[in-house]
Amino acid sequence: MRIGTDDLLDIATGAAFLGTGGGGDPYVGWLLAMNAIEQHGMPTVVEVDALDDDAQVITIAMLGVPTVLGEKAACGDDVDLAVKRLEQRLGRAADALIGIEIGGVNSLLPVMAAARLGLPLIDADGMGRAFPELQMTTFNVGGVSSTPLAVVDDHLTSLVIDADDAKSAEDLVRVASVQLGCSVVLSSYPMSGSDVKRTAVRGTLTLARDLGRTLARGRREGDPVQMLVDYLHTTPYYNHCRILFDGKVRDIRRETKLGFSIGHCELAALDGSDSMMEIAFQNEHLIARQDGQVKALVPDLICLVDRETGEPIPVDGLKYGQRLKVIATSAAPIMRTPDSLAVFGPQAFGLDEPFVPLEDICD
Amino acid sequence: MRIGTDDLLDIATGAAFLGTGGGGDPYVGWLLAMNAIEQHGMPTVVEVDALDDDAQVITIAMLGVPTVLGEKAACGDDVDLAVKRLEQRLGRAADALIGIEIGGVNSLLPVMAAARLGLPLIDADGMGRAFPELQMTTFNVGGVSSTPLAVVDDHLTSLVIDADDAKSAEDLVRVASVQLGCSVVLSSYPMSGSDVKRTAVRGTLTLARDLGRTLARGRREGDPVQMLVDYLHTTPYYNHCRILFDGKVRDIRRETKLGFSIGHCELAALDGSDSMMEIAFQNEHLIARQDGQVKALVPDLICLVDRETGEPIPVDGLKYGQRLKVIATSAAPIMRTPDSLAVFGPQAFGLDEPFVPLEDICD
Repeated sequence: MRIGTDDLLDIATGAAFLGTGGGGDPYVGWLLAMNAIEQHGMPTVVEVDALDDDAQVITIAMLGVPTVLGEKAACGDDVDLAVKRLEQRLGRAADALIGIEIGGVNSLLPVMAAARLGLPLIDADGMGRAFPELQMTTFNVGGVSSTPLAVVDDHLTSLVIDADDAKSAEDLVRVASVQLGCSVVLSSYPMSGSDVKRTAVRGTLTLARDLGRTLARGRREGDPVQMLVDYLHTTPYYNHCRILFDGKVRDIRRETKLGFSIGHCELAALDGSDSMMEIAFQNEHLIARQDGQVKALVPDLICLVDRETGEPIPVDGLKYGQRLKVIATSAAPIMRTPDSLAVFGPQAFGLDEPFVPLEDICD
Repeated sequence: MRIGTDDLLDIATGAAFLGTGGGGDPYVGWLLAMNAIEQHGMPTVVEVDALDDDAQVITIAMLGVPTVLGEKAACGDDVDLAVKRLEQRLGRAADALIGIEIGGVNSLLPVMAAARLGLPLIDADGMGRAFPELQMTTFNVGGVSSTPLAVVDDHLTSLVIDADDAKSAEDLVRVASVQLGCSVVLSSYPMSGSDVKRTAVRGTLTLARDLGRTLARGRREGDPVQMLVDYLHTTPYYNHCRILFDGKVRDIRRETKLGFSIGHCELAALDGSDSMMEIAFQNEHLIARQDGQVKALVPDLICLVDRETGEPIPVDGLKYGQRLKVIATSAAPIMRTPDSLAVFGPQAFGLDEPFVPLEDICD
């Protein structure tokens, strides 16, 4: 895959959708990537199968409260230092970068990092969406250790962490991120090329780009939401897809707690009925209930888009009175296995409802 | 200075006094040191002046809530790993260890570490007492960086931190220590031999030992508290010394908050008067007020001892009805400079009262 600067805005738009409400503002990622590319040139994007099995791959991402990620974006030196500290700990230089998630700012932060560091970027990630916690990746489900990892803040304070398991690492990174101002750069999940081949969700940069392209064309040609849904049906992961609800935001509660943006949003139907939909989130949308009945839940994707333009609306962009459509899609099959559901299924978020694939939920 | 196993219990007793209520139970440090010495032999103790100017010196300590330090003591592997991680980050092996504080468990933890690692231990520390926070050292006052530092917990989870200043490092280590269960091993303040010569409080292992010896002799010969005071008058640092109060514990409030043991204790006079003394603490005793009038305050030492046996009573050993004497002594002159007071004087603990040396406070 070759990407040009024209593609970056499409990736940002696609990543806003795949961010399912969280992941930080991808427009910030776009600014960071464009700036890095102006100085260092466009990085090479490689497919998973092109990797050497013993290549040293590491992830690069921002972690924190989505609202703060946009206010305290990575400056570049923090990205360089995070990679350097992890390489020091590994005693080995990185051969390639991979995104931890394709949703939100973390879709394009790896483009920025790859440009700055002159490293190839892999067209894949560890979830094919966004999730709030570090252990919630297919890498972890596949037995790749999240540590050693490096965390760097905007003052270039750095931490290098080694932990037994990804949840312990998450707990530690989270309290550190709160202490460091709720926005940090993170380089983690050092893995081999064969680990990537075994565990990554493939082709997601391309998917995000094509998703963004589809929305852009839809806005020019009319009915972007329907074009988006039609496109999703053709994808390998998001092919089970439906518009769950067409409504107006009538209540929104959000609080920044334990380093997350936690709350829920209520939509009233626009069809004149009394129907309502409630969506709960922890950075990302977790579950959509219509009149008390579950319509979609993690790890399937629940996305809110402007009902006219199809623009994805993140949790921190929700406002009273907005007119939105709720779109749900299936997650990649690798995300719906029992092992995966144990790490990022509904119960991992404290929900009581068992996971049911979107396509098996009756109207 | 040569120390033998007989000396270790004396050091533990002396360190309990110099811990001024905090620093964790030195008996735990004694057990750890004895165990390490049985397996690895007695370490060499060297004087500050014997150090090469360019020797690589590092500190080793436990950090956390004093009560928890006694319950979750260092296992040894954590000590080894903390030193190893710091050495990896420095790219250089340590030539010698130094204590960060001489109060409490951290008086003897470096003996344990020196025995395990086969490194010489320096007869000095960074405060000549105990303090609750990482930045509160003469090393920091003298411009030595507290980082890079390594933190290790009982599951051998490790963090290596680089920060701009010792207070930022403290804030980060503190939230990490709470997340890791309120008791961690810490290797920090990498410095040169000449840094040690310039900034350390010298001879404090010897002082702690002699203080413990004096108490032991006092218990055999009678009037240990008076013998202790007589001995302190002969020391280079603690020579301003007085018994502030003779009383009975009538109230004690303690809470574990933000990773510290915070509270205060009230003593009623035993001389039949209505007089009372209140002592506030954050791990260590901070200020003693008699009937509302300040009698001693940090960084001078405020110590509670059993009025009969002279046994130092730590904050977490305080109980209603205990009969105690309150002894205050001067801190080392290097601890009372304006630069030092800015880092660990009364205002650094949120107290309003300005520092007045013990010897200048009128009865």
